[in-house]
Amino acid sequence: MAVYTHLSAEDLADLIAHYDVGELVSAKGIAEGVSNSNWLIETTGSDGKGARYILTMYEFRIELEDLPFFLGLLDLLAEKGCPVPATIHDRSGATHRMIVDPDEPDGEKKAVALIEFLPGVSIDRPEPAQARAVGKALAELHLAAQDYATRPNAMGLASWQQLIADCGEDGLARIDPALPQVVSEALETFESEWPEGLPSGVCHADLFPDNVLMLGDKVSGLIDFYFACTDYFAYDLAVTHAAWCFANHGRKFRPEIAAALMEGYESVRPLSDAEREALPMLARGASMRFVSTRAFDWLNTPADALVTRKDPMDFVRRMQFYAASGNTPFTS
Amino acid sequence: MAVYTHLSAEDLADLIAHYDVGELVSAKGIAEGVSNSNWLIETTGSDGKGARYILTMYEFRIELEDLPFFLGLLDLLAEKGCPVPATIHDRSGATHRMIVDPDEPDGEKKAVALIEFLPGVSIDRPEPAQARAVGKALAELHLAAQDYATRPNAMGLASWQQLIADCGEDGLARIDPALPQVVSEALETFESEWPEGLPSGVCHADLFPDNVLMLGDKVSGLIDFYFACTDYFAYDLAVTHAAWCFANHGRKFRPEIAAALMEGYESVRPLSDAEREALPMLARGASMRFVSTRAFDWLNTPADALVTRKDPMDFVRRMQFYAASGNTPFTS
Repeated sequence: MAVYTHLSAEDLADLIAHYDVGELVSAKGIAEGVSNSNWLIETTGSDGKGARYILTMYEFRIELEDLPFFLGLLDLLAEKGCPVPATIHDRSGATHRMIVDPDEPDGEKKAVALIEFLPGVSIDRPEPAQARAVGKALAELHLAAQDYATRPNAMGLASWQQLIADCGEDGLARIDPALPQVVSEALETFESEWPEGLPSGVCHADLFPDNVLMLGDKVSGLIDFYFACTDYFAYDLAVTHAAWCFANHGRKFRPEIAAALMEGYESVRPLSDAEREALPMLARGASMRFVSTRAFDWLNTPADALVTRKDPMDFVRRMQFYAASGNTPFTS
Repeated sequence: MAVYTHLSAEDLADLIAHYDVGELVSAKGIAEGVSNSNWLIETTGSDGKGARYILTMYEFRIELEDLPFFLGLLDLLAEKGCPVPATIHDRSGATHRMIVDPDEPDGEKKAVALIEFLPGVSIDRPEPAQARAVGKALAELHLAAQDYATRPNAMGLASWQQLIADCGEDGLARIDPALPQVVSEALETFESEWPEGLPSGVCHADLFPDNVLMLGDKVSGLIDFYFACTDYFAYDLAVTHAAWCFANHGRKFRPEIAAALMEGYESVRPLSDAEREALPMLARGASMRFVSTRAFDWLNTPADALVTRKDPMDFVRRMQFYAASGNTPFTS
């Protein structure tokens, strides 16, 4: 949650000049994203009435060849009326530009993109009406992007196995003595019992409350599509379920939020029987996805770094809850 | 440069409700300030037309009893037409509120204040016209706050001595082998030759380019008054001179910027002969002020922290330049 690169007002003005957005009026580095630097930019606007944008510089973890997938997806979804920020294209029509990092003039260029700024705030503790709106927005996203390009899910089962292997048994046991056995049993289960052949398409794959902007009960923005990929729609719903329906670090399931989320989703895209049946396993997998990345980051982030480490046990609790609860958490 | 405290949208909405600013529309943590957390807040505005504010939470290094001095100063300067953000008072008239840190509900409350958002960008490499505008704005600030309250300069000579003593000779030598002798000679000089009896009043005392917002050649905002104190006006000018008139980490003096800065200042508040004569010594002291805080922070910030350490040698070079150049850098 930091701005990793210093861009001066002069650098920013030079960059902005490649877009039809008017003159630079204000620029604030914002504390969002762990692998990007982001600035909230204000300009005079192409019509002189003022406009705001988010400028993103891609710093780590992103493959440049994936950018057209992510940025083109925003354009498609915005065009179809989903509440996502459209990509602002430069005067030559490009979705992103490569610029020199002024601190490392001889280093590799970095990619930057300008996207719409959307109003709204991220909710920490949702109300049912808000969860219903999010479920609906997710289903609309699934339908709107149905004919879009494909991108394999880089954060699927194979990546969980790899991350857990990289942690090592000792590392996992340092986080919690029970962790090595919990994850090895879970990974074995997924290996043999992961659902097959469910309806799939473009998924957000990381729709935490952080990545949803709301104005009251209305979804004003779905953001941060940098894990978007092709996967089961029901898996994306399971990720969202795990991200939204718990309080107190995964200790307390909130059935009223879950019911509202499912209801909202199914009001737009009803689930098939196979999807419904698969949800408990998909939700265990969704929990494992965050156990694995959080465990890896936990062991590889210095305790005194300004980035807050997230406790993998929050998602171990969810995984165990889903394993014990059958289909109940998914009834609307 | 981080947001140290997590405030949820719900926390922010509760806070905003104490002010006559409408409803919360957007909130982004911004990467500014090393001892504060800051959010750029958008609301519907008291008139429904939308408004923006900076919300500051005071985290470290600030004495609560100083807040009325800082926040009242903003009000006075704004009222007198200086380009500073006015403090937004809550419905009871208070300039700041004490709130519970949601992450430490049993800990001490923290002070927060809401101030105006001002447009403009901070310039890395000023043009003469910009330096002239800054000089003028500084002199106007000096005149406007003449009858305001007093606050001793906590970052004066005694603090430099203390910080340097805390670094220790070994620590200083680890930064640069020449540093222990350079600073001990400088501190002796200030002890015996620091000017006396110059005109004094409220000083910004930290007017780096970071703390000035500009739109083209116009100063749109002077910000971050948390070092403001009573000191010689000419010392404040010397701080600004040291902060603005060098390039390449203090290696290159920019005479055209210095001339413009002096000219701008004197167009509003001409210097007395005594002030003019004192400027070289004051500028050596101003340089020493940043040598001492940067040396202390250099030795006390982990190399892998996300806060960028600033090299104290950048200001050693300035101090040596001022010691060698007499009055030349201060002629307009």
